Amino acid sequence: MADLRALRGILRLCALLAGLVTIGGPALLAAQSRPDSFASVVSDLVTANRILAAEGILDGLGHVSVRKPGDPSRFLLARSIAPELVTADDILEYAADGEPLDAKGRDSYRERSIHSEIYRARPDVQAIVHCHTPSLIPFAASDVPMRAMYHMAAFVADGVPIFDIRKAAGVTDLLVKDAPLGRALAKTLGTKSALLMRGHGAVIIANSLPNVVGRSVYLDLNARAQLQAIQLGGRLTYVEADEAKLRMSDPNEYSRAWDLWKRKVATGR
Amino acid sequence: MADLRALRGILRLCALLAGLVTIGGPALLAAQSRPDSFASVVSDLVTANRILAAEGILDGLGHVSVRKPGDPSRFLLARSIAPELVTADDILEYAADGEPLDAKGRDSYRERSIHSEIYRARPDVQAIVHCHTPSLIPFAASDVPMRAMYHMAAFVADGVPIFDIRKAAGVTDLLVKDAPLGRALAKTLGTKSALLMRGHGAVIIANSLPNVVGRSVYLDLNARAQLQAIQLGGRLTYVEADEAKLRMSDPNEYSRAWDLWKRKVATGR
Amino acid sequence: MADLRALRGILRLCALLAGLVTIGGPALLAAQSRPDSFASVVSDLVTANRILAAEGILDGLGHVSVRKPGDPSRFLLARSIAPELVTADDILEYAADGEPLDAKGRDSYRERSIHSEIYRARPDVQAIVHCHTPSLIPFAASDVPMRAMYHMAAFVADGVPIFDIRKAAGVTDLLVKDAPLGRALAKTLGTKSALLMRGHGAVIIANSLPNVVGRSVYLDLNARAQLQAIQLGGRLTYVEADEAKLRMSDPNEYSRAWDLWKRKVATGR
Amino acid sequence: MADLRALRGILRLCALLAGLVTIGGPALLAAQSRPDSFASVVSDLVTANRILAAEGILDGLGHVSVRKPGDPSRFLLARSIAPELVTADDILEYAADGEPLDAKGRDSYRERSIHSEIYRARPDVQAIVHCHTPSLIPFAASDVPMRAMYHMAAFVADGVPIFDIRKAAGVTDLLVKDAPLGRALAKTLGTKSALLMRGHGAVIIANSLPNVVGRSVYLDLNARAQLQAIQLGGRLTYVEADEAKLRMSDPNEYSRAWDLWKRKVATGR
Repeated sequence: MADLRALRGILRLCALLAGLVTIGGPALLAAQSRPDSFASVVSDLVTANRILAAEGILDGLGHVSVRKPGDPSRFLLARSIAPELVTADDILEYAADGEPLDAKGRDSYRERSIHSEIYRARPDVQAIVHCHTPSLIPFAASDVPMRAMYHMAAFVADGVPIFDIRKAAGVTDLLVKDAPLGRALAKTLGTKSALLMRGHGAVIIANSLPNVVGRSVYLDLNARAQLQAIQLGGRLTYVEADEAKLRMSDPNEYSRAWDLWKRKVATGR
Repeated sequence: MADLRALRGILRLCALLAGLVTIGGPALLAAQSRPDSFASVVSDLVTANRILAAEGILDGLGHVSVRKPGDPSRFLLARSIAPELVTADDILEYAADGEPLDAKGRDSYRERSIHSEIYRARPDVQAIVHCHTPSLIPFAASDVPMRAMYHMAAFVADGVPIFDIRKAAGVTDLLVKDAPLGRALAKTLGTKSALLMRGHGAVIIANSLPNVVGRSVYLDLNARAQLQAIQLGGRLTYVEADEAKLRMSDPNEYSRAWDLWKRKVATGR
Repeated sequence: MADLRALRGILRLCALLAGLVTIGGPALLAAQSRPDSFASVVSDLVTANRILAAEGILDGLGHVSVRKPGDPSRFLLARSIAPELVTADDILEYAADGEPLDAKGRDSYRERSIHSEIYRARPDVQAIVHCHTPSLIPFAASDVPMRAMYHMAAFVADGVPIFDIRKAAGVTDLLVKDAPLGRALAKTLGTKSALLMRGHGAVIIANSLPNVVGRSVYLDLNARAQLQAIQLGGRLTYVEADEAKLRMSDPNEYSRAWDLWKRKVATGR
Repeated sequence: MADLRALRGILRLCALLAGLVTIGGPALLAAQSRPDSFASVVSDLVTANRILAAEGILDGLGHVSVRKPGDPSRFLLARSIAPELVTADDILEYAADGEPLDAKGRDSYRERSIHSEIYRARPDVQAIVHCHTPSLIPFAASDVPMRAMYHMAAFVADGVPIFDIRKAAGVTDLLVKDAPLGRALAKTLGTKSALLMRGHGAVIIANSLPNVVGRSVYLDLNARAQLQAIQLGGRLTYVEADEAKLRMSDPNEYSRAWDLWKRKVATGR
């Protein structure tokens, strides 16, 4: 008799779960699929971290953030962990001043002011990458200006300024560790799409996570191409400003690449 | 009794299937093995996409096509998807004007005019690659001419012209998006085996899929070798035109490499 | 009856094992987790070998050592085997003179004097890497001085001397095979963080295994960046000495990278 | 009764097999372990093919051979297949004139005269690699002489001649396809350890398979280092001839590297 009761209890639990899945499942899927839903943006931010690590843009250091959907005064950024290891549980929410809302004892990236101050200064920016990509370090160390070598890096055409922390704050340990330094960096960025940091690395901005990931990958390829063109010599050509303007009006510029990269990190390749 | 009837029915079905396999199997295999059969060409086109992605010639962007076996006025090209992800179901058939015969709602590559207009202008061309291979971008940006550094890229020896879309059509977004632009590009290609696109990438043509894949891979290696030779300095030598001509009379030039690449993508390496 | 006795014996053995695990388990875990415990240092040394191989710093040759916890007159170094293959069983203990305490018939690295003589000359050094990293060979062959291109290689800022074995000992087979050669190399190193060996490779020192691994990886990236900056041209900037000093006061400089690398070799990626 | 007989027959067969394994097993193992046994040399030749492919020295083309143990007038070389795909069944035996003894309908590499003619001219040579390694193509195209940048490529120190097939035979398709061309190449090689082929690639020789594989890998690394040193500038140093001579007296120069590479290809890494 006890066995029958236990069996009936199990069957009732199964019915309840089935009901929940039937009603709640589509709700969950809908939540995932709404492009601006919180869960889907967190998922894309985790994906962005993994892609940037897989493509060699970020290694143990560097970070990527995105404005919070529905509340532009906040942004999402992982806790202080290597991008390759970021999971949804590592994503923290930050206020406009760069302070985490609920850190739960976890450390934040020391250079989060790069993100908070650019979001403050640039309402058009929706996603930011800070990286130490090897190909960009020589350009951060030279006064030879970056040029757009091909259409995939058209956003470089209006110039990539260099932020020199020494000019902003004298002798430092080279880290943009507070709001004043972040503001100085955002000021140097101005209206541009990317910035180099002398003796440090780079910052890339865009109007979406797919676009900031695409821009970061192609900024690396573009830098390599420019160095090689200089080594090749001859009379060099670049993407012209008017051509770059037309290219940048394409809203889906990096979408096919994003789809590929997203699928590759999902399947662990 | 009902059970016996069901069993007899199943046995009859098995006999029918066995017969079909016995008769139809070899027919299917023969279809696959005939070098010009439609199914085997579609399979090779999928393989070519995967090889070019694996070898770093194509990434999220770029594409490869082949003339339709038995109907040279048509060609096969994947729908708009990253080459690495192409499957047989993604292959569409295109008419001579670059329009898909039955898209089934799927998008086509915007630059398919590169393929359609070259097939029109060059009856000898059986397969075409359009790529943004990183090593080619510097050469597309410089007036230093490409040279054949070794026998594997002998097809470079008679020259690699540069197509500048600005000369053809003024200010554009750099994409060869329509037939007039495709015709201008095909005109620049002339009788050559490859062409560079200023601020964009390259196009490679050949008389078969294995050869266009081989040429694309070795064009990349040759470009790197030429840049390094220039950096090395000294008095440089190249493959001479008469040597190149003899090399290109070898019909199996890239076959051993194709066999290796084909097997590697099949086994997921 | 015999069966019952056997069963009772088995049950007693299980109880004994359970007791041992209950008492001994936490003791073992505590041993692993104490940062300076012998077992955890041996484990970290194996990990360091694997990371340096995975990151391309060491290949079939080269080695990494660490001072023995609790006895600074001794150090730990693998027997003569490729770093990628090192396991805990391959770690040997060495005396201050570079001789193994209990080789058990296994061969030692011929160039262990690099380690023994630096440990003798530099009480501050806790870990040493000797490598033939490809990017460092050109710098070992040139009198162009290494410079710190970015914050991740700040330790380069006070200079990287070149040890020329010919100046120390005339004609040799280029290997630092004995104590006098090790002493000459340690003398050239002086108080610096890294040294180049003409016609051979490099040596990197640090105050911990994570830091010597981090320094070795970023010395490679820094060398590549410096060469590229020279190729790029223009007016070049570097990390200044005062900036470098502030950077090097950060005790956790390479810890996030170490955590990532450690996890990757543990999971076989 | 029939069952009992069958069972007895099976038991007798087992006893026979056990006997064969007991007696023959050690004999087989001894055959594998004798360094010069035919089976172990074939196995090492397969391994050498796989290593050279994994290390980027050979791709779809190129080949490696070894003199036949016990009969120096013969040599072993795979049939015409990509090195990465070579198995023991692909290894053919060749006579001194470069003709296969029993091809069983399989094609031979067209350039086997490189091997046959060097074996004829150089009794000291036990193994030969012919490759198109990308880093060597610029050196094959320039009159800047190769130099030994570090101890791992000491064998380069006495010079690397360039074989120009045009000087030997006028206009060709650049392949060393017959004995006269092989003899011309062997003559250019002289007593050296490696040779470059203008517009083609390189040939490396050694006194064993491990050493020809080690030399081929480090020739590639050395070429990259030399190019980078030239780009770096400054006053350059090299391995001196007397130092190189001492290095080359080390019989185990590449053995630790060979052990690592062998284990990696065996485990599919």
